[in-house]
Amino acid sequence: MAVLIVGSVALDSVATPGGRVDNALGGSATYFSLAAKLFSPEVNIVAVVGKDFPEHYLKLLLGKGINLDGLTVSEGKTFRWSGVYDESFGDPETLDTQLNVFKAFAPELPEHYCGSGFVFLGNIDPSLQSKVVSQITAPKLVAADTMNFWIEGKPNELKALLKDIDMLLINALEVRMLSGERSLLKGARAVLKMGPEILVVKRGEHGVMLITDETLFVMPAYPVEEVIDPTGAGDSFAGAFMGYLASRGKVDIDELKRAAVAGTIVASMNVEGFSVERLAGLTKEDVIQRMEYFREITDFTVPEL
Amino acid sequence: MAVLIVGSVALDSVATPGGRVDNALGGSATYFSLAAKLFSPEVNIVAVVGKDFPEHYLKLLLGKGINLDGLTVSEGKTFRWSGVYDESFGDPETLDTQLNVFKAFAPELPEHYCGSGFVFLGNIDPSLQSKVVSQITAPKLVAADTMNFWIEGKPNELKALLKDIDMLLINALEVRMLSGERSLLKGARAVLKMGPEILVVKRGEHGVMLITDETLFVMPAYPVEEVIDPTGAGDSFAGAFMGYLASRGKVDIDELKRAAVAGTIVASMNVEGFSVERLAGLTKEDVIQRMEYFREITDFTVPEL
Repeated sequence: MAVLIVGSVALDSVATPGGRVDNALGGSATYFSLAAKLFSPEVNIVAVVGKDFPEHYLKLLLGKGINLDGLTVSEGKTFRWSGVYDESFGDPETLDTQLNVFKAFAPELPEHYCGSGFVFLGNIDPSLQSKVVSQITAPKLVAADTMNFWIEGKPNELKALLKDIDMLLINALEVRMLSGERSLLKGARAVLKMGPEILVVKRGEHGVMLITDETLFVMPAYPVEEVIDPTGAGDSFAGAFMGYLASRGKVDIDELKRAAVAGTIVASMNVEGFSVERLAGLTKEDVIQRMEYFREITDFTVPEL
Repeated sequence: MAVLIVGSVALDSVATPGGRVDNALGGSATYFSLAAKLFSPEVNIVAVVGKDFPEHYLKLLLGKGINLDGLTVSEGKTFRWSGVYDESFGDPETLDTQLNVFKAFAPELPEHYCGSGFVFLGNIDPSLQSKVVSQITAPKLVAADTMNFWIEGKPNELKALLKDIDMLLINALEVRMLSGERSLLKGARAVLKMGPEILVVKRGEHGVMLITDETLFVMPAYPVEEVIDPTGAGDSFAGAFMGYLASRGKVDIDELKRAAVAGTIVASMNVEGFSVERLAGLTKEDVIQRMEYFREITDFTVPEL
């Protein structure tokens, strides 16, 4: 089944304790689609770039077989973000954000995208996310990302969106903001009551929690040898997660757990290089090998007392 | 086999967003021994308290069958610590530390303690920890805890100690401080080169990593419904870990993994109450039940691609 991602394609300038890149390929739709394409044959992007967007980045995405029919090239400049990570590789400090053509982004789906089964709404204004949902004709799973900026700035629009989606992917802090609960587990259950049937709590280097009304699942992150650039970890996680589900064509709790494994492993590889350096070079075999090693280093039996 | 813990028995005053306790039973040896006693029939404490130490706290520990022959009651007041946790339940802010009789703590082992097979050196001056090691006659496993204060303040004494122990339990920040490595995994390997064969990296609500020259193991924490008081989480983890190993009488990689499960589960229960409220009331059956549920919520298979 086809995967649809609506989000950003951007030019990122990123500095870390280990180095820096300038105007490198970035954006949620970029990371998501490259990760999803490892699993799903059909990945459709809806995004906008400016006339200045480098031709070789377009070629990179096209060369991977990602469908860019929904990528608008507008008059003006491409969305640019610049940030710096410190030694902890936690949340980056944003040095500069230039929305440029992204400011007027009003996602319109090409007609042949509307039947996409697995839809991911990248982190944009929740009213735009809702507009995308209304254009989808036969979704199997609609998932969304969001952030503190929208939770605080557009709470009503976000709550309306939550009623229309099946799955929400956010971090632990966002769960607490959205629910007002101190306890992550109580907060997660409160978020489920707002609409989505599935909540995926991304905890970065600390792993992931998956929760539905009936099931709870916790998993550690893959212990990366050396983080180079954490940018795109969440989006590559989401891309592999949705791409894997699309390749199966179904959603049940065991498939969701396996999707979380796929997401964890691809995200762990993505952070091993700047921009999409590592992600763009990955093969399915690389992913399989690390997934198997991951199973090995996480397996245990409980004590018999 | 017998478990020996050398550490503190203290009176803690703790405030959290959910409440507070004053002069409650605390200290590394207290949490450790209560947790270890769930698994091991013989648990020996070496610690010091003052004449003011409440009789009912002694009775609580004795009532659990913990051996207090090595608990000295000295002229003066008991070690007191006072701290406050914020909403994140991360590291507490210390409001007050009164070492009192603990200042002159010079651990002397009663003769019948010297044959203890499983020895845990709580977080005290590394030169005192080394003094304990020299009194042990036939250890099966010697483990130690330490902290930033000793890593910075007594680096040579700590390095001498590391050559004499089998296992070190520290947190991720301490691994980075001790090794000077940014990468946790590289740092962990550097710490192994300093002496211990086994490193257990405690990551609080984010789980645990166990590493030896040949093996890597990562595990998430148990998702606690509501944290009441994180004090003693690390020591109850260590107590259950060592107590479980002592109950088996052997140390191999599978037993170490199971010990980490035991530690994780007992620590998750300890934080559900102030002081030792929850820990002191636990039964083996409570622990077994949660371990089995933990196995259920962490189990997965990898995708077949």
